[in-house]
Amino acid sequence: MSPVECVRYRGMAFGQGAMLRPQVQLHTHRDDVFILDDQKYPDKLTMLKAARLIAKELGGEKVSFDDDNIEAHGHFEWSTSNTSARPVAIVTPKKVPMVPFGAGSSVEGNCSSPFSGICIDLSLMNKIVAFHEDDMDVVVEAGVNWVDLNNKIKSSGLFLPLDPSPSAHIGGMVATNCSGTNAMRYGTMKDWVVNLTVVLANGEIIKTRRRPRKTSAGYNLTTLFTGSEGTLGIITEITLKLAIIPQDFSVAIATFPTIKDAATAASRMMREGVPLAALELMDEIQMKLINQNGGAGGKLWAEKPTLFLKFSGTRRNIDENISRVKIISKSSKGIQFDSASTEKEMTNLWAARKEVLYANLAARPEGTQIWSTDVAVPLSRMAEIIGKFFLQDLILCWPFRLSSSVLGHVGDGNFHQIVMYNPDKPQEAEAVKRCVHNMMISALEMEGTVSGEHGIGMGKKQECLLEELGPGTIAVMKGLKRSLDPLWLLNPGKVFDEK
Amino acid sequence: MSPVECVRYRGMAFGQGAMLRPQVQLHTHRDDVFILDDQKYPDKLTMLKAARLIAKELGGEKVSFDDDNIEAHGHFEWSTSNTSARPVAIVTPKKVPMVPFGAGSSVEGNCSSPFSGICIDLSLMNKIVAFHEDDMDVVVEAGVNWVDLNNKIKSSGLFLPLDPSPSAHIGGMVATNCSGTNAMRYGTMKDWVVNLTVVLANGEIIKTRRRPRKTSAGYNLTTLFTGSEGTLGIITEITLKLAIIPQDFSVAIATFPTIKDAATAASRMMREGVPLAALELMDEIQMKLINQNGGAGGKLWAEKPTLFLKFSGTRRNIDENISRVKIISKSSKGIQFDSASTEKEMTNLWAARKEVLYANLAARPEGTQIWSTDVAVPLSRMAEIIGKFFLQDLILCWPFRLSSSVLGHVGDGNFHQIVMYNPDKPQEAEAVKRCVHNMMISALEMEGTVSGEHGIGMGKKQECLLEELGPGTIAVMKGLKRSLDPLWLLNPGKVFDEK
Repeated sequence: MSPVECVRYRGMAFGQGAMLRPQVQLHTHRDDVFILDDQKYPDKLTMLKAARLIAKELGGEKVSFDDDNIEAHGHFEWSTSNTSARPVAIVTPKKVPMVPFGAGSSVEGNCSSPFSGICIDLSLMNKIVAFHEDDMDVVVEAGVNWVDLNNKIKSSGLFLPLDPSPSAHIGGMVATNCSGTNAMRYGTMKDWVVNLTVVLANGEIIKTRRRPRKTSAGYNLTTLFTGSEGTLGIITEITLKLAIIPQDFSVAIATFPTIKDAATAASRMMREGVPLAALELMDEIQMKLINQNGGAGGKLWAEKPTLFLKFSGTRRNIDENISRVKIISKSSKGIQFDSASTEKEMTNLWAARKEVLYANLAARPEGTQIWSTDVAVPLSRMAEIIGKFFLQDLILCWPFRLSSSVLGHVGDGNFHQIVMYNPDKPQEAEAVKRCVHNMMISALEMEGTVSGEHGIGMGKKQECLLEELGPGTIAVMKGLKRSLDPLWLLNPGKVFDEK
Repeated sequence: MSPVECVRYRGMAFGQGAMLRPQVQLHTHRDDVFILDDQKYPDKLTMLKAARLIAKELGGEKVSFDDDNIEAHGHFEWSTSNTSARPVAIVTPKKVPMVPFGAGSSVEGNCSSPFSGICIDLSLMNKIVAFHEDDMDVVVEAGVNWVDLNNKIKSSGLFLPLDPSPSAHIGGMVATNCSGTNAMRYGTMKDWVVNLTVVLANGEIIKTRRRPRKTSAGYNLTTLFTGSEGTLGIITEITLKLAIIPQDFSVAIATFPTIKDAATAASRMMREGVPLAALELMDEIQMKLINQNGGAGGKLWAEKPTLFLKFSGTRRNIDENISRVKIISKSSKGIQFDSASTEKEMTNLWAARKEVLYANLAARPEGTQIWSTDVAVPLSRMAEIIGKFFLQDLILCWPFRLSSSVLGHVGDGNFHQIVMYNPDKPQEAEAVKRCVHNMMISALEMEGTVSGEHGIGMGKKQECLLEELGPGTIAVMKGLKRSLDPLWLLNPGKVFDEK
């Protein structure tokens, strides 16, 4: 269409979607020519101005002023209805990825933006919406920090019993189904979510449930969104169950000659059903790092594989459980057993476990990074997989003198391996990569999982998750993804890829 | 094609699917005529015989011998490849519903066949596949009965801590996300499933996870299938976490002047965090029914609202917890408090709770049925919703002198109301229906659920589930259903309807 012709058609409006479309209803079978209502829509020059502004915003290549292209979008030979009016321009926005972002504390690239897009930072949605003390639940926005929450509700005697990174936001904790040292006693994030408010890819907002603690009404969307890493919807509000803060706490530590002895003792404590609040393992290297960092709790530590135990309940319960654990520890070649009887002793005894991450960061040789990974296996295989890790480490990482160590939530069959390496040295990076990969394979051979608590993110999606679950199960997951996000707009490149 | 022509084409085989399709590969663009290999396929008469047998099985209207229809299914004018061979008949099977069936103990029509179809009874899949004592888990087929399982593994000191109907099979328990009196301490079925083997609508078999107790790898398909009532797939094998059988048990009962006092006492026990193994409530009518049935545990009972409490752990724990509960009970207007110190006393004290279902069945006047329903509300609303039930009952059921009573898993905010009515008396049936419906609405107004543990089945799908979750959430569930079962073949008519 020539510019001269164009002047005759003045009435067009921006459509909602991808194309500036003429708002004209025709009731003729011929290509009629008529003047549209001047009052209703701006003139052509204004429209062109608008289209140029859009071109500036979206990038020139997404807006076309080409006559042939305009014609192809404006006249349809096969149609019984046509208009001689034409759009001034064709806008073709691409799909824009949306990446929900909490505190950014996840470790598998769960909130990275590999395809750029718009990162939706939910940190200003940080209100406690409603605290139902008598129902033992609380409604929070996604950006609430769990430590803040627990401080604010402390006087009620209730708390949220998860303990991931202290910086974590509850939205992200749900999105990655986090856990931590308390998972042994209290389970993982999924066990504390009553309902979720979720913004879907199409903009709709749903609530997965009402507010009963127990229900069997309809599909469990709550746990489907929990752990889906923002790929199925954006979690904006969460109702959480709360637990009663136990009357009393205590801690104990037990050291062992070998990591195998420590893992065996841990297994026996589990199997005898001693009610522990936490059961953590640090190997001799981790203990050494603590000492290198000046110790913890005002003292230096035995550089031996060490179990850290937490107890909670009434004083009498705790004393009884400490006695039981002490006996098991002794009969499993335990070298030393210490339990706390005052608050100060408790803090000091737990200090090494508490400070382990800082000790690792402080101990890093210059230029090195930490590769921290996370697998879980059935309980009885704990000692075996740790043994395999040390063998792999000896073969692959030892030649480069890399510092490798183990930190385990042994009560869940879950442990982290931590290797320090220099990413600028390709051979080191390759050695760590192979070592981590071999651990995944070992975990799977033991019927375990490639991710106990960190999620899949970008880091573990390809070989790992596919190897763990097989193509049939992944196909079902992808089907669910397509059902909820057909254009693959939500956090693309995470968990699994589109093709 | 005439019969004479037909004789020339002898080689056809039954296809897998809807049509008897010729198994001929043509490499020509013309309608070639040729004789197929006599050895490979039966002759035309045999094929016709087969088609007639199919017609007999599926019903005549689903098999066509019509020449025009055969031609329409045999030659394609627009195709570059054709054959002159034709099928002997066209079979058009309709979609056949598949209804998975466990023990049939569910109460909302969850395993009924409203559209007929094929009922898949899994009761012969009753093997314990693998018992991993040291991992504290067990792999079972869907048809294993939970009481049998617990008897078989008892000597290991482990058990599955759910307690639905004693006849229930584990497949059905997972499909309805069952619970029972132990849910307060141990959670519901979903909390004990490590992984599922599921046959999908398309015949594919998937496993939702491997065997770690804790994982955050990929979407939680395990809990999506749990509670989906056989509408998303048929659960054939289940890996279950097991719990340690507590060293010791005890029970206690406490009677109160009013149901409100009993519910208040229950709330306080919860809120003070007394570790109870079960917290059950029976109203005065239920206690009366026990007495009418000759009592329980060798005695008649006070016809007052009664709390039944279970304790587990070590002897010292239990004694401590019984003391705490006794104090709360007394300060909540408790009339009487009894605890057991011997095994015999325990059995006797729990007898009334144990025999309540039998007492209800025995007490039914001739011609009446029991309408048992199940709602759950936030903990603090328990007393209020029970009050509402009695008011509704007074208005609607009392004019017909129907026996109505309450039996609650108060530790979960979940209770059952039991009304006896004569289904042949339309006014009685209508009164009960309205009473039950009003209870659902009350539960929803209190942010509760229309089903605490029985599922949706046919009974609660329409007004109830839709009212509870709203159209947006139901649309998401239907989207998931379509993604997994596009032809709506699995247990149709349950949870929600296709249109």
